[in-house]
Amino acid sequence: MESLCRDVADAVQEAVEPMAGREAAGEVMGMGADGTPTKRIDEAAEEAALEVFEEHGDIRVVSEEFGSVSYGDPIYTVAMDPLDGTYNASKGIPLYAVSLAVADGDTVEDVFYSYVRELNTGRTYTARQGEGAEFNGNPIEVTNGVGTDEMTVGGVYNIEHFDPGVFDRVRLLGCSSLEMCYVAAGRLHGFVDMRAYLRVLDFAAAKLAIEEAGGKVTTGGGDRIDEKLEADRRSSVVAAAPDSHKAIMEVVR
Amino acid sequence: MESLCRDVADAVQEAVEPMAGREAAGEVMGMGADGTPTKRIDEAAEEAALEVFEEHGDIRVVSEEFGSVSYGDPIYTVAMDPLDGTYNASKGIPLYAVSLAVADGDTVEDVFYSYVRELNTGRTYTARQGEGAEFNGNPIEVTNGVGTDEMTVGGVYNIEHFDPGVFDRVRLLGCSSLEMCYVAAGRLHGFVDMRAYLRVLDFAAAKLAIEEAGGKVTTGGGDRIDEKLEADRRSSVVAAAPDSHKAIMEVVR
Repeated sequence: MESLCRDVADAVQEAVEPMAGREAAGEVMGMGADGTPTKRIDEAAEEAALEVFEEHGDIRVVSEEFGSVSYGDPIYTVAMDPLDGTYNASKGIPLYAVSLAVADGDTVEDVFYSYVRELNTGRTYTARQGEGAEFNGNPIEVTNGVGTDEMTVGGVYNIEHFDPGVFDRVRLLGCSSLEMCYVAAGRLHGFVDMRAYLRVLDFAAAKLAIEEAGGKVTTGGGDRIDEKLEADRRSSVVAAAPDSHKAIMEVVR
Repeated sequence: MESLCRDVADAVQEAVEPMAGREAAGEVMGMGADGTPTKRIDEAAEEAALEVFEEHGDIRVVSEEFGSVSYGDPIYTVAMDPLDGTYNASKGIPLYAVSLAVADGDTVEDVFYSYVRELNTGRTYTARQGEGAEFNGNPIEVTNGVGTDEMTVGGVYNIEHFDPGVFDRVRLLGCSSLEMCYVAAGRLHGFVDMRAYLRVLDFAAAKLAIEEAGGKVTTGGGDRIDEKLEADRRSSVVAAAPDSHKAIMEVVR
């Protein structure tokens, strides 16, 4: 799966980079399977990815733009966000990614391999169930032992769930797959989105990365996330090292 | 001033890039002139910048770590943040910058040339008083004609000043000089920080970029910012295209 994901990411990167920050990138082309508008740069990313999957064959792909497609006789399902951070990419803010989660079943808990590439740097976060998570091929771990007042936390879009100043710093980077991979690599201490808004396809890969890096990922209510890998499925997310996860759950209003 | 700023940015980039994302980068080395801790990566950035200024001579430099220093017989003052986005740089989140504002007087209104380089991409925002602002040498303009509900706004750290959902999107990137330059280039629609917390040294350069790109920059109360270019001076900031600035001021609580 690793070489297939790398080929897909290469194709997406090649398609997206020439468009990033250019006006045409943001042109709306139609509506996606998830009910949000598809921009030209999304379409380019998805087409580039699908070409590679089609050539590989024997795979099912689920994506936010078209829903689901099967090539040949699928063994695995790939839950894909070909371009996470569309606004950033279309405006030339250098934080956007391709996110690929490979599953042997139909829920987010069946993901056994994940691949997220930060497209404008080419840096890659990968994880394999039971074998750990890596950044550019080097093992990564979540950061343990940090109190909420020392935490830098991503994804806190509805800050009304928290007292002002409960965290040391907040980051809203506009690319949740990367923000969650930053948690896996200890760049951020946690990721919190209480809105039940995040698409399963956006975080299926990063969820495995965090878990394989020693972290915990639940809904905003602290429950397991066992959603189906479908374009319209969404969830709230709290992700952090186990002790940080506990600390965050205690300060949610 | 342009070639001097470019040389300084080159030196900072060379000093910072090998440290970015490495553990030693975040080690605290002492307290800066602005009363915040200086990290190893800050110190490296500042030392690299000062070497270039010293060699150039006849210049006064103001920076958050040491306050003010004069070389030779200064004509101009450079208000410098050698590394804006220290947390990002030390953790390997790819958004950090060197910010240089050249002034022929001692307040932020005396800045006549500005240079901000996004260090991990090498992309550069420059502005010259009365002559416009540029991104990588190409003219840039703020985006006009956008209602608050369509805006993507940076810097909204104390969101309690705004109703939830008043803006379409919020970005907290942890690097205010870049967030403000993104406003100058139309990548973001506005930048709002109501905390009276932002260091003048951090935004003196980006302020000129926004103004030269056709935008307006005031305090959170809508007043002129005429602070002295000193390490301990801070201000609230509202920055946007003139019509967007007006719209933002109307939704501040």
